[in-house]
Amino acid sequence: MSSTPEFSRRPRRGHGRPTLHDVAEAAGVTRITVSRYIRQPERVAEATAAKIREAIERTGYVPNQLAGHLASGASRLVAALIPNVGHSIFAETIQSLTEGLHGSGFELLLLSTGYSLEREEAQLRALTGWAPGAIVVTGRQHTPGALRMLREARDAGTPVVEIWDHHSQNTDPEDFAQIGFDHFQTGRQMAARLVELGHRSLAYVDSGVTEDFRAHERGDGFEAEARALGAKVKRLRANIGDAFDAGREVLPSLLAEAKSPITAAAYANDYLACGTLMEAHAQGIEVPGRLALLGFGDFPIGRQLDPSLSTVRPPTAEIGRVTARAVLESIAEGQEPLSEALSCTLIERMSTSTKTGR
Amino acid sequence: MSSTPEFSRRPRRGHGRPTLHDVAEAAGVTRITVSRYIRQPERVAEATAAKIREAIERTGYVPNQLAGHLASGASRLVAALIPNVGHSIFAETIQSLTEGLHGSGFELLLLSTGYSLEREEAQLRALTGWAPGAIVVTGRQHTPGALRMLREARDAGTPVVEIWDHHSQNTDPEDFAQIGFDHFQTGRQMAARLVELGHRSLAYVDSGVTEDFRAHERGDGFEAEARALGAKVKRLRANIGDAFDAGREVLPSLLAEAKSPITAAAYANDYLACGTLMEAHAQGIEVPGRLALLGFGDFPIGRQLDPSLSTVRPPTAEIGRVTARAVLESIAEGQEPLSEALSCTLIERMSTSTKTGR
Repeated sequence: MSSTPEFSRRPRRGHGRPTLHDVAEAAGVTRITVSRYIRQPERVAEATAAKIREAIERTGYVPNQLAGHLASGASRLVAALIPNVGHSIFAETIQSLTEGLHGSGFELLLLSTGYSLEREEAQLRALTGWAPGAIVVTGRQHTPGALRMLREARDAGTPVVEIWDHHSQNTDPEDFAQIGFDHFQTGRQMAARLVELGHRSLAYVDSGVTEDFRAHERGDGFEAEARALGAKVKRLRANIGDAFDAGREVLPSLLAEAKSPITAAAYANDYLACGTLMEAHAQGIEVPGRLALLGFGDFPIGRQLDPSLSTVRPPTAEIGRVTARAVLESIAEGQEPLSEALSCTLIERMSTSTKTGR
Repeated sequence: MSSTPEFSRRPRRGHGRPTLHDVAEAAGVTRITVSRYIRQPERVAEATAAKIREAIERTGYVPNQLAGHLASGASRLVAALIPNVGHSIFAETIQSLTEGLHGSGFELLLLSTGYSLEREEAQLRALTGWAPGAIVVTGRQHTPGALRMLREARDAGTPVVEIWDHHSQNTDPEDFAQIGFDHFQTGRQMAARLVELGHRSLAYVDSGVTEDFRAHERGDGFEAEARALGAKVKRLRANIGDAFDAGREVLPSLLAEAKSPITAAAYANDYLACGTLMEAHAQGIEVPGRLALLGFGDFPIGRQLDPSLSTVRPPTAEIGRVTARAVLESIAEGQEPLSEALSCTLIERMSTSTKTGR
């Protein structure tokens, strides 16, 4: 899964110049393909590339009209609302978003919502009147008030993108562009792999943060797939606070199932998994022999531990890169930004290996 | 060390209402003391409190005139320029700054400089015309262009604060308010403690990031104190990239000193120290028996490892809290923000313990 049907084609601002959309129509391809051809021609098949070249010539399209937009005096800040800017999983996205904007004349304006939808709404309200060049929000859950402001901003011509989430059912034209991945599907893939490795009694250790909707959705997918494959599955909620400690504290619950002992656990994030891994080590519980562990996030520490932690690597940096490109293109073209579905990578290290163990 | 002489008393905006400054003058105490009395009366000696109460009555001072400022239509954003928003050491400061602003009507506008002074200057330029309610920058190193913009902002009545640094020699009235701690002194304290524990051949593992000036300054202090106490000291520079890996890679250099073997190393940050600790474990090098390790930052992982990592805890959350208070007060009072010197805490865990080891 790498691209998604376009669902937002409304032109935002009328101007006479040919746009990416015109080129796409003339070439009979999607805007994403034209965009890709312009940025990374090597990723486009030669036959398609030829059609696009021809369409560019025919329409007289000139890429990158950002300079004109900048001269118009619009705000040069891209506002991004992120649940927790200190969380390493968002840090890479922020970094690549910043890099992607570098040299464009736009700077990133970061707001930390602290995983609170009310705070997100308050921050969007604070932005009102500032006319940011674009608005980037995290996920697709918003308060009604926030939703109203986002729609107003979009209808007034401000690109709006939801990042870190890409929901395949999301085809309502009222919805916003999404650049991220499908968390439910990712959870399903995690369960499927553990079952494939021979595990029949699984656990999902969910985030204790109520508004970490994406972690819960991965858990939902994990449960659904485990059940569909005939495995038992237990859902646990980690404590709030230091994630390593929360991961340590979950170990007794994992070991408590007497009848059909849990042999593999998946986690909302790597820190929780690392906590369990370290506590298991301290208590002499074999990983993966007695308990296989699968994290999420590919945080640097997981690779350092012994056994090293298997994990799922989300497209953290790619989300930022694609979002920067989509936002700048949207501003330049006067079109709404394009959605893009990205995918995660399963990284199997020692904590799920079937080769080691007892 | 908890407070510092005031060096910036210029009133910024004239208005008839009595200010914190008026109360301080009437009571014969500093503005910090009055501020403290208003926020945390229990931290002020009763005799002083009585003087302040009397002065408040005499001047007719009414705390918190923020509401009036907000009604004036000035921007409701406090801009903060942070080297790396994803770095956990800054994350807590950002979080407490956000919490400190909560309910004030101000929101935090975060910009990530990526440890680049040029980027800081570009971002300050992008802010021009936005009239942020206040500007918070990290550290006291800036390009001449950035310095000019910061001074212009301050002279136009925008509170400017440098955080994460407090330089005791900083008494030039051209300088900005500083809320942080003295990095050189902190480095000295780290060296002094290791010498006190019996070590005579030390190392400081510095950050590989050229513009992490504060880490280098702690290293300078560490070297100076070690030499002053008659100890040998080697300065190493960590590689750029994953900090755990960089910490692992430094171990051979630490063990290479044949003549007077290094027995204790201090680090620019905990991740580097954790890397060395894990590599030492993998190679069977005893910590602290053969090599004692002292980190900096008190990152959650250090407490989880075995042996647990000794470290220095900077006042991360306090910096954010005090900065939020100083900025809001400054806006309310029409006075420049107050400097405050905070201090670090040495946390001795197992990696420097003299009780374990061989």
